[in-house]
Amino acid sequence: MARMRRLLAVLAFASLAACATSATTYRDRDQSDAMEAVIREQESAWNHGDLDRFVSVGYLRSPNLTFYSGGEVSRGYDPLLERYRKRYQEIGREMGHLSFTDVETLILSSSTGVVRGHWKLEFQKDPAIGGLFTLVMERTPEGWRIVHDHTSVAAKT
Amino acid sequence: MARMRRLLAVLAFASLAACATSATTYRDRDQSDAMEAVIREQESAWNHGDLDRFVSVGYLRSPNLTFYSGGEVSRGYDPLLERYRKRYQEIGREMGHLSFTDVETLILSSSTGVVRGHWKLEFQKDPAIGGLFTLVMERTPEGWRIVHDHTSVAAKT
Repeated sequence: MARMRRLLAVLAFASLAACATSATTYRDRDQSDAMEAVIREQESAWNHGDLDRFVSVGYLRSPNLTFYSGGEVSRGYDPLLERYRKRYQEIGREMGHLSFTDVETLILSSSTGVVRGHWKLEFQKDPAIGGLFTLVMERTPEGWRIVHDHTSVAAKT
Repeated sequence: MARMRRLLAVLAFASLAACATSATTYRDRDQSDAMEAVIREQESAWNHGDLDRFVSVGYLRSPNLTFYSGGEVSRGYDPLLERYRKRYQEIGREMGHLSFTDVETLILSSSTGVVRGHWKLEFQKDPAIGGLFTLVMERTPEGWRIVHDHTSVAAKT
């Protein structure tokens, strides 16, 4: 009975400790890698011209998904897909070559985190565009997914 | 002994459930209010011309603090304070009137979350500027603090 009580205490403490530290540590290789892997998959999908895969592997299929860009808020998975299609799959419009650099992750809990860095889109004809991104991610049964995306364009210099 | 085991199981499950739901729930009034209160305090500090208080009540005093804006990454508390001072306290430069609207929070764990919305700065002489912000916050012994700020300016229409 005493051993059982000790076990109970240890288990309760361990659970709480896991809860508390997971929220504040900035080191969790596996989780960081898993979060970054999502945007590397997005990069690859984009550069294969597969916009649907770019969106489906990256974003949470939810009406709560938010996308902040250029002063505008887009809400929900379907409007986001529509936005990308309009911008990058119109006739005569190039999707360009996408790259993410200086990628950094923040672990916010065992099932949430942030991936951020620089993005760049290079085109055959038009000048390249780029800027910064901040992606809030959540672990779902399907894997890590973006629940909030804030993407900004660098001012032209 | 059977009761103890049942209690053990219930406790373990409850801890795990608390862990899991804290990361995914979008409703936690107290925490949301506490996070939003920080930026309301910042708003008030700014509109009293108190830039030092604006920075100190809002941002984590850490070299890991990051500020993303206009394609540029600023890292650390002191460089951030310096950036604000340069932009808004130069001779002849107005700080303007700051307001945050459409503020929404995301709870990512019991000690982390996101506050986001629209910002606007109105001046006596110059035209107003504004855009979107995404603030990643952490609960610290001093209160909730911003650990990552992504602020973008709306394209002129």
